[in-house]
Amino acid sequence: MKAAVLRNARIAVEDVPEPQPQPGMMMVRPLACGICGSDLHARDHAPHLCGLLHRAGFRGFMDPARPVVMGHEFCCEVLEKAGDFRSGDRVVALPFLTGPTGVELLGYSNSFYGGFAERMLLQPEASFRVPDDVPTPVAALTEPLSVAVHAVAQAQPGPDDAFAVIGCGPVGLFVIARLRALGLAPILAIEPDPVRRAMAERMGADLAVAPGPEGAAWWNDLDLPLGLSDAMAIDPAVRRKSRAVLFECVGKPGMLMRIATDAPVGAVIVVIGTCMESDAIEPAFLIQKGLRLQFVFAYDAAEFADAFAMICADPDALAPMVTGQTRLSGVNDAFDTLIGGGAIKLMVTPSLSP
Amino acid sequence: MKAAVLRNARIAVEDVPEPQPQPGMMMVRPLACGICGSDLHARDHAPHLCGLLHRAGFRGFMDPARPVVMGHEFCCEVLEKAGDFRSGDRVVALPFLTGPTGVELLGYSNSFYGGFAERMLLQPEASFRVPDDVPTPVAALTEPLSVAVHAVAQAQPGPDDAFAVIGCGPVGLFVIARLRALGLAPILAIEPDPVRRAMAERMGADLAVAPGPEGAAWWNDLDLPLGLSDAMAIDPAVRRKSRAVLFECVGKPGMLMRIATDAPVGAVIVVIGTCMESDAIEPAFLIQKGLRLQFVFAYDAAEFADAFAMICADPDALAPMVTGQTRLSGVNDAFDTLIGGGAIKLMVTPSLSP
Repeated sequence: MKAAVLRNARIAVEDVPEPQPQPGMMMVRPLACGICGSDLHARDHAPHLCGLLHRAGFRGFMDPARPVVMGHEFCCEVLEKAGDFRSGDRVVALPFLTGPTGVELLGYSNSFYGGFAERMLLQPEASFRVPDDVPTPVAALTEPLSVAVHAVAQAQPGPDDAFAVIGCGPVGLFVIARLRALGLAPILAIEPDPVRRAMAERMGADLAVAPGPEGAAWWNDLDLPLGLSDAMAIDPAVRRKSRAVLFECVGKPGMLMRIATDAPVGAVIVVIGTCMESDAIEPAFLIQKGLRLQFVFAYDAAEFADAFAMICADPDALAPMVTGQTRLSGVNDAFDTLIGGGAIKLMVTPSLSP
Repeated sequence: MKAAVLRNARIAVEDVPEPQPQPGMMMVRPLACGICGSDLHARDHAPHLCGLLHRAGFRGFMDPARPVVMGHEFCCEVLEKAGDFRSGDRVVALPFLTGPTGVELLGYSNSFYGGFAERMLLQPEASFRVPDDVPTPVAALTEPLSVAVHAVAQAQPGPDDAFAVIGCGPVGLFVIARLRALGLAPILAIEPDPVRRAMAERMGADLAVAPGPEGAAWWNDLDLPLGLSDAMAIDPAVRRKSRAVLFECVGKPGMLMRIATDAPVGAVIVVIGTCMESDAIEPAFLIQKGLRLQFVFAYDAAEFADAFAMICADPDALAPMVTGQTRLSGVNDAFDTLIGGGAIKLMVTPSLSP
């Protein structure tokens, strides 16, 4: 069978052996599998990313020197009866599989394939049947939406909070959608790209603004204050709110202090944008403002289930996030497109001839 | 009258004009006034500290170019009837006073005296009568204890948490006392100084350890891992706990990443130690561990009242924290003693002849 294999910072289609299901594993066919920002890091900076995860105490993460089939945002078709599932059922699943050496992270495992393959293995216990009215690419958004579900929950949001999302890539857009689904408002989006600003408003932002004067370049704008306090004060509904919750979805050095500088006293800054470099902060300044930096990662099984329930409740709401699809042979180019900012969420469809 | 006046990074006794009470102000005589770590910063690095506070949006903070009478941890005697208070009552009070240009922070105001003076002004609404069985120096601990009350509350602690206090200066010791008063445990204290370790256990720590091998120098030890996870894993009661809450009470560059490196996944790090320099963090690492950095500052009126209630409920508990007293003429030397680590909490007693 075919799979898109990562080797030496490049992804190419290869003939690979069929997966060998062990007891408790279910053979499935990936129908759609989104490309995640972490995948982009993993292709181009695998040793750095892997070193970080090992230092943070994670096991079951790939050895970057060996080939990997990535893809952890998948919707699959069941190929043979397993647990409560029948052949032909569509499923989404938590990207974990218990192998002989413990839990492996699907999409970042040297032992099991991720979703950029014609076939892969899942555990029925970690899987959810997709209702008929949910399109396959929308179902495949469950996993990245789970990250936003977790991030919003970690902010411990309440009805008296005001929200700002800084950076409207996929993660920021999912955060906006999650806030809106929970009835939390107002939501300010800050993003230099007008297409993404329009998408932010479509996902539920009350207002989407550029980080500085309209039309100025992104990096030039980042040298200016984000104008957060000004932007928030324009709206009287915001001014009455008691706490600001700010989602950092950019992940570049300097963003934390820039946000802290404009943040209201007592604000919560939820850090999702993954800055891979070292960053400088001024603790005494953060202390004077009584700020909270909540760093967030992944989600738990209940949050994955919440994300899936949110998608099933309104399958149309997130559909605009999927801005394109590609065959297995186009995966490497799709990564480059995403790095260049030319798409929001691209779906790999391994069932199309490679 | 006499006061200890800060001028050009030195404190000396001077003859100063009597305070002029305006309507709503109460004339009092400071009986005891603690020296705070912030006072040490303010004497030696006033422009830096003031710049920081102005940038953080605080008004009513001193102009460092003009003289100041510091002291905001006071217990005073009322000199004339005001509000519900009679002459001779002892009071503690929130260190704020509303002057003609707004709220001023007593102890850091160019317009009103702090507690290092023979007389000062308070607002009755911000004051609490001290019961007869509470010694004056213990009552004067209300203000610094309030900082710990706030810090512990911001951690949102629960019965399934395990606690570690890193650095056992006054702030760390008050945090330990507050945790113990709330019945929260287990509490691990990490502190290189054996006298402070003994005090940590007296304040309620279950175990007090040095940050590295016993007897090694403090700064050498800081180059080693704090051994937090090891130390916490020794005690089976800790191992069962679901969340670690770590109080950073040192305030030196590098501490945050050192604590983060040893912190369990999902830990809350409450940052009280005021690092005045820039510090480097690695956001991607903090993200992988899902850590929370809660920076804390000051307290609110309800927390001050909680701190006062805690002191009144058990006046003996905190008494050992007061390790010395000084006249007004000894304030500058007392600052040097504290900077050198030769005391825990020193009380200035302006009523003794200077």
